Amino acid sequence: MKRREFLQQSAALAAVPFVGVPPTRRRIRAPLHVDGARLNSWLASFDAIGRTPTGINRVAYSQADLAGRTFTLDLFRQAGLAPRIDTAGNIFGRLEGSSASLKPILIGSHIDSVTDGGNFDGPLGSFAAIETARSLREQGVRLRHSLDVVVWQNEEGGTIGSKLAIGEFTDADLDKVARSGKTIREGIQLVGGDATRWRDAVKKSGDIACYIELHIEQGGLLEKADLQIGVVQGIVGLRWFEVTITGFANHAGATPMNQRQDAMLAAAKFTVAVNDAITGEPGRQVATVGRLTVSPNTTNVIPAQVVLTVDLRDLDRAKLSRFTDTFERFGREIGAATGTAFAFKRLVDSEPAIASPKVMDWIDTSAAALGLTRQRMPSGAGHDAQEISRIAPMGMIFVPSVGGISHSPKEFTKAADVVHGADVLLNAVIAADR
Amino acid sequence: MKRREFLQQSAALAAVPFVGVPPTRRRIRAPLHVDGARLNSWLASFDAIGRTPTGINRVAYSQADLAGRTFTLDLFRQAGLAPRIDTAGNIFGRLEGSSASLKPILIGSHIDSVTDGGNFDGPLGSFAAIETARSLREQGVRLRHSLDVVVWQNEEGGTIGSKLAIGEFTDADLDKVARSGKTIREGIQLVGGDATRWRDAVKKSGDIACYIELHIEQGGLLEKADLQIGVVQGIVGLRWFEVTITGFANHAGATPMNQRQDAMLAAAKFTVAVNDAITGEPGRQVATVGRLTVSPNTTNVIPAQVVLTVDLRDLDRAKLSRFTDTFERFGREIGAATGTAFAFKRLVDSEPAIASPKVMDWIDTSAAALGLTRQRMPSGAGHDAQEISRIAPMGMIFVPSVGGISHSPKEFTKAADVVHGADVLLNAVIAADR
Repeated sequence: MKRREFLQQSAALAAVPFVGVPPTRRRIRAPLHVDGARLNSWLASFDAIGRTPTGINRVAYSQADLAGRTFTLDLFRQAGLAPRIDTAGNIFGRLEGSSASLKPILIGSHIDSVTDGGNFDGPLGSFAAIETARSLREQGVRLRHSLDVVVWQNEEGGTIGSKLAIGEFTDADLDKVARSGKTIREGIQLVGGDATRWRDAVKKSGDIACYIELHIEQGGLLEKADLQIGVVQGIVGLRWFEVTITGFANHAGATPMNQRQDAMLAAAKFTVAVNDAITGEPGRQVATVGRLTVSPNTTNVIPAQVVLTVDLRDLDRAKLSRFTDTFERFGREIGAATGTAFAFKRLVDSEPAIASPKVMDWIDTSAAALGLTRQRMPSGAGHDAQEISRIAPMGMIFVPSVGGISHSPKEFTKAADVVHGADVLLNAVIAADR
Repeated sequence: MKRREFLQQSAALAAVPFVGVPPTRRRIRAPLHVDGARLNSWLASFDAIGRTPTGINRVAYSQADLAGRTFTLDLFRQAGLAPRIDTAGNIFGRLEGSSASLKPILIGSHIDSVTDGGNFDGPLGSFAAIETARSLREQGVRLRHSLDVVVWQNEEGGTIGSKLAIGEFTDADLDKVARSGKTIREGIQLVGGDATRWRDAVKKSGDIACYIELHIEQGGLLEKADLQIGVVQGIVGLRWFEVTITGFANHAGATPMNQRQDAMLAAAKFTVAVNDAITGEPGRQVATVGRLTVSPNTTNVIPAQVVLTVDLRDLDRAKLSRFTDTFERFGREIGAATGTAFAFKRLVDSEPAIASPKVMDWIDTSAAALGLTRQRMPSGAGHDAQEISRIAPMGMIFVPSVGGISHSPKEFTKAADVVHGADVLLNAVIAADR
């Protein structure tokens, strides 16, 4: 189907008003299906929000993020899920279950983006969760558990909404400045929370029956293996370092090469050394220098200071520690060789999060019943699911990213894969409810 | 003398109004001296203009630059040099000579700074030129040649004022954006020129008897050799490249190391390769990566693009060409190895400028008569003198920079060296006049 026809058809479907169907308890034999065209139409409409010439820019607490939340709140309402915003700024909507004694099943994701990102990282899982609840209602399926749909705030800034939700947060963290330039505290107020009472939003171990999140893979493993579904085994641990390299500003023409203390040269040597170390041994570990700023950043001045970040990830905690030591040694060695000083600051330190075998089985069984090909695999990217895994059994469903691309304007997941992922989510919820 | 006493004394001296002394022609036997305390007091006062916590910020066309020009115009007036601003925005003031048939001797420098720079690079030569003219007048010395004192606009942005003055400029260049964010065209208007008539300011070969510029060395050679004066043999040629490295943005956690097109890694490898090549052979060649910006510049996104600059300098034109070829080859090789594309753009290309042997002799003889130690040496930094050398015999006087530091808040030249330099300038002008 051509894009224009698809959008017209999608818009037509999206315009059909929600009609409540009287809930009935019925035995479900065949796997159920979501309304895939409707779900894809939501994603297509959402693509316009925060779209810029360089990609989707819906960074948390920006105007585009707020517009995205407004759009999403409408989807909750159309689904009959009266949405509420908790004091931490996360959006929740509930499909009531028949048994008040059971803890709710939680499904969802986020809708904020990175700078110059794409339209699927987050929105797919958020909208599929809303569609799952709406499909259950429309198809007259009454669960025993209540089904809570959540849209976490500010995932890309370091899973802030889900960290708040498990209480892994301090009042001091509220003053940290997010990518939008606003503090977390200001952000919470902006999105309708109440930063002074964020602890009211905290959930404890046992409050949630299980958490299931659908997400794009953000890598190329499923596509390479030509598989439709990833059953996530766990989320790699992550360390973010901010490295400040201090040299000495001097004239780029009049200062002989052997009298320099060039912070940029030191930063370049460090970046190459980090890459060599990470690629120099077998394994799936990754490290990235993604952010780097130079002072004074002038063509004819030897750089006095460079601040850069290193993003290090692996499923093995011991390996994270070992590479941390290696990077710090590089700093000492390169500092000594270039007459510069390296200072390391740990910005983020998240432990690997292991998925619940039970939830993995529900996902696996659902995918099998739907006739979808699949594999178990780790997640190289961080997700809100890693936070919720601290207080509840967690599982994640991955669908392929075309070309393995994400955090990029070219991020794309095919409409059929969107539907496969949502169908697996719907049936995994039903499996979890049994 | 302690700094406070020095400043008080300097201020007192500076407050003495200019009293015109009837000009008399007299034979000068001993070397003359400038009023060194007065000159140093001007520099001390000037230090407050554009001073910020991170250094002097008087980038061309900024508010601080305009304030600096106002201060400088006052010095011209106090010296009895009725200043005028030419259509290119350069400041000129004349001490009339006795012989109308002789072309003027030109002395001067600039007063704009780099970002986070110091107080001596430019102001020393500008104020010493004003002081030279004032001393001649106060000491009753009437030259045969008129003596023109010039303060060139926007030296740090690429010797813009002096390029305009020799006509090495196009109307298209007027639209280039200077460090202040303003175009050259806007800048010329701001400083009192007339961008539509900049060609009225152009000087031709033969219009100037000679040009002499006093400047801080901006390197550590004089200090290391414990010498007081540098007699500049020439100014190295300079090439500025802007290198755009295009990779592909992707998720820093989910993208395996062997599936990346990391523009920052490519930039780091290139920066190290440039340094290795430059330091890998004998000679005084220098190359610097001073400016570097990353997109999207986010911790958890593999960089899609890096734009960096290379500043390459040497007295030997052939060597500049050879290194240019080498750097472009690095781009091809590293691009192929990292899956990125390198594009090179030549921002500035200035040929080596050779000083006039006659002017070097005048400088040398004057320093000798003053009992100052000296050596002949190249200038690694670019100067307005390199432009004026295209139309007139040129010479430059260097005085030591403490620690070889310049383009830095720590840039400093001792008060005694300031006076030595100005004394040499004064006596070189007298030698040139003979």
